[in-house]
Amino acid sequence: MGGVSATEHAARTPHVPKQDRSRVTRQRLLAAAVACLAEHGWAGSTVSVVAERAGVSRGAAQHHFPTREDLFTAAVEYVAEERSTALRDLFPDGPADRRAVVAALVGLYTGPLFRAALHLWVAASNEDQLRARVTELEARVGRESHRIAVDLLGADESRPGVRETVQGLLDMARGLGLANLLTDDTARRERVVAQWGTIVEETLG
Amino acid sequence: MGGVSATEHAARTPHVPKQDRSRVTRQRLLAAAVACLAEHGWAGSTVSVVAERAGVSRGAAQHHFPTREDLFTAAVEYVAEERSTALRDLFPDGPADRRAVVAALVGLYTGPLFRAALHLWVAASNEDQLRARVTELEARVGRESHRIAVDLLGADESRPGVRETVQGLLDMARGLGLANLLTDDTARRERVVAQWGTIVEETLG
Repeated sequence: MGGVSATEHAARTPHVPKQDRSRVTRQRLLAAAVACLAEHGWAGSTVSVVAERAGVSRGAAQHHFPTREDLFTAAVEYVAEERSTALRDLFPDGPADRRAVVAALVGLYTGPLFRAALHLWVAASNEDQLRARVTELEARVGRESHRIAVDLLGADESRPGVRETVQGLLDMARGLGLANLLTDDTARRERVVAQWGTIVEETLG
Repeated sequence: MGGVSATEHAARTPHVPKQDRSRVTRQRLLAAAVACLAEHGWAGSTVSVVAERAGVSRGAAQHHFPTREDLFTAAVEYVAEERSTALRDLFPDGPADRRAVVAALVGLYTGPLFRAALHLWVAASNEDQLRARVTELEARVGRESHRIAVDLLGADESRPGVRETVQGLLDMARGLGLANLLTDDTARRERVVAQWGTIVEETLG
């Protein structure tokens, strides 16, 4: 973009269209940003560190993401969208066995994405520049998680209490993610998920 | 302590016994440490900053807490114990109305203590020095919260699923605390707590 003629463009990108290269660079930066946040936290996560990890020049990284806030909020959003898509793909026929859906929903909160999002979230609570961006991002990601949960659980939100049942379930999933931060909480979590899968099944009727 | 004779002691503390002064200093440091963590996060929380906030000399602070890790883990533990006591005092006759107990349990996770603990927790996930200490602390605080929940809910853990029901409830409380970090989530939380109070009541029978 930015004043490159078609001839120059063709000369500089003999094999891959420039837009595709740009998209690939962007995705590599986003994936590296999430991994960096998850491993090193906000204090250890800068555009330079991510550019190096992604094998991209600092200039190219800054072309895509002018500020640190741009890079890391975009990264968490990108991976959240990827995970939402993956979750829907797990249940291609829509509403499914609720105990399996509860387990899959909780699974969203126990990997590197949750860890990265948590670091961003906690950093935002003390940094004004980040706060508004992350608040808006979390609201958007939260609405999408809720929509997926309602769809896959086949929950009828016109019935009293159903909306709050699904919300509480997602809050529980978030709390289970937090419990998995310092230690491997898998064994306990599986027992809790089995029990609450049954409770949600009975409550949704 | 430390080689001060009884005469010196009496001369230096005309009004308040030295042990009491020491205890008061310690408590002021602990309260200041929790407030500091909640407001500024781990990166902004040092022994010096806390000493100044508590109106205590840096030397006195270091006498009580030789390292930063000592100070902040002790602070989170101290306030967690205070809050557990306060929670038990709310229901002096033991098992109480379960919906009220659920609301009070969730309340444990929505104030400055939870915010401080969360900062410590997240910092520990990237700092080896802190990790072992915080893991052990969280296990202890978690066991105590579970014990209080079981007692106040009058839950019979010999029945299958009851233990996991209570654990999931505390996980939900933790997730609700997280949802309250960046915005005031009170209105939504109250609806979720009302619905889940009913679910827990029905499940525990």
